[in-house]
Amino acid sequence: MKAFQEYLDIVNGAIAVIPYPLQPNQLYEPIAYHMALGGKRVRPVLTLMACDAMGGDPSHAIDVAVGLEMFHNFTLLHDDVMDNADVRRGKPTVHRRWNDNTAILSGDTMLTIATQYIARSANWQCMDLFNKTAIEIYEGQQWDMDYEDRNDVTVDEYIMMIRLKTSVLLGCALKMGALIADADITEADLLYQAGVNMGLAFQLRDDVLDVWGDPETFGKEIGGDIMNNKKTFLLINAMQLAKGDDADELRHWLNDPYATRDDKVKGVTALYERLGVRQLAEDAITHYNDLAVAAFNRVKMSDDDKQAFVTLANRLSGRQY
Amino acid sequence: MKAFQEYLDIVNGAIAVIPYPLQPNQLYEPIAYHMALGGKRVRPVLTLMACDAMGGDPSHAIDVAVGLEMFHNFTLLHDDVMDNADVRRGKPTVHRRWNDNTAILSGDTMLTIATQYIARSANWQCMDLFNKTAIEIYEGQQWDMDYEDRNDVTVDEYIMMIRLKTSVLLGCALKMGALIADADITEADLLYQAGVNMGLAFQLRDDVLDVWGDPETFGKEIGGDIMNNKKTFLLINAMQLAKGDDADELRHWLNDPYATRDDKVKGVTALYERLGVRQLAEDAITHYNDLAVAAFNRVKMSDDDKQAFVTLANRLSGRQY
Repeated sequence: MKAFQEYLDIVNGAIAVIPYPLQPNQLYEPIAYHMALGGKRVRPVLTLMACDAMGGDPSHAIDVAVGLEMFHNFTLLHDDVMDNADVRRGKPTVHRRWNDNTAILSGDTMLTIATQYIARSANWQCMDLFNKTAIEIYEGQQWDMDYEDRNDVTVDEYIMMIRLKTSVLLGCALKMGALIADADITEADLLYQAGVNMGLAFQLRDDVLDVWGDPETFGKEIGGDIMNNKKTFLLINAMQLAKGDDADELRHWLNDPYATRDDKVKGVTALYERLGVRQLAEDAITHYNDLAVAAFNRVKMSDDDKQAFVTLANRLSGRQY
Repeated sequence: MKAFQEYLDIVNGAIAVIPYPLQPNQLYEPIAYHMALGGKRVRPVLTLMACDAMGGDPSHAIDVAVGLEMFHNFTLLHDDVMDNADVRRGKPTVHRRWNDNTAILSGDTMLTIATQYIARSANWQCMDLFNKTAIEIYEGQQWDMDYEDRNDVTVDEYIMMIRLKTSVLLGCALKMGALIADADITEADLLYQAGVNMGLAFQLRDDVLDVWGDPETFGKEIGGDIMNNKKTFLLINAMQLAKGDDADELRHWLNDPYATRDDKVKGVTALYERLGVRQLAEDAITHYNDLAVAAFNRVKMSDDDKQAFVTLANRLSGRQY
């Protein structure tokens, strides 16, 4: 198997030559803008790696890999409208730089372009997996929005939500690479399971980084989840664990519309540390990363390939960005 | 061939039994709501008719027919957000009854559900036609929005826009029925051409009905386009034809933010009649309907089938609703 960077170069090369029509400019320019923002490109790289590891020719998986990255970027455009987010990867979001209508319509276009890239595989299993995964992701986003209005969200519900919203796409990316390689369905499904667990660890790491990350490398302002009272793994656990004065303080931060950003982020962060929810998150990350590693190790592939996936899983679950 | 009503019953029956998941309710309830609003169901009926006329079994075309109707409804959900529309088929639009986020996310879900229905055909020609058509429709919507900020839109540009935004989906619906019937590509393409021309007449009729329609049967408030200064076939022609006092009056209606709805709609309607743009629209409708009829008559099918399509084209281009 190649190094991560080599697959990344292939992916970035393919994304750089996507032939957007010139007109209507207002439709395609935001797409090119967003695709050029970069990002980790984890999903398309996973697809190429899985195809390679399963004995396929990764060049045959480039179209579906680009399709998955285009799809992921479509979800970001629409999520940024729904969450009213200003910044993405250190740059203005599409709906902020242009407007909501642009983000909606260019996003729709990206979803159909993504479908076209998946269709190029002429593989109905890939198409069905793609559509099923897309539906799950919308359901996850809906649960996420539903949770905003609830104060009784459980940890299990939260894990169910991030499994849908984030993790299944990583599973899909790995499985699709295996499908392109014409791998045995047992191996493809094991890769899917590995991807889902990797995705859970990945999203939990995201929750942690939002509080304790380095703003330089994270690309977003620290404390965004805290400011939005977002029901993350940290807040849900804190709401369950806080008693007495801690519970009063947490309620105060959640309900005081006049708290400054600085005070609220510092106050909630200190509470999280006092209540031990940071450690709970780290334990959960380790748990899901272990499950991912175990699944990778059960896939019939070379030890070198297993090691490459395990290294990547460890890196994503322990990342600082 | 069956009567229009029989195909319509089949389509409505299939739409009535779409198995929406129960949860998350906030995602699926708006979809069921919108699909139950009814509408003319022209696109799915065209698909079944074309399949039947080309010697196919229309029951094999039901899935793609439902997919096209689901897709059409998805575009309405998102268009209603972008146009800030309050009423659709006499009922509150989804973004008004729920909110913008719901309309965005439920719309996305409908696009993917539509793709799943198209995929059930296991026919890559159908999938490619569907995706190509979807992209054209987004482009049409973008041109439509671009035109809002321009005062020099030509009639040719307008026709290009409605061809993309409205007509290609009628062409696609007919061609897809032919593809499911495994018809010769020449016949399928002739049906596509017939559908596109039928769609142009259909949309021009819509422009006319917005001004001179019966609010009871039209389902929307009369004069909406006039109030929004929408660059319809009527306004574009009026802007070109109005001279002297007429030009001054038209400028006044377009720019006076204090004009009452009643005054503005009456004033612009009177101008349209004085300038003869209503007749220009009727002439254009006849022109495109004639092209549609000529294309239908060139398709290799029974005279009865030709007559059924011609009757439908005449009805749609002359409709009062």
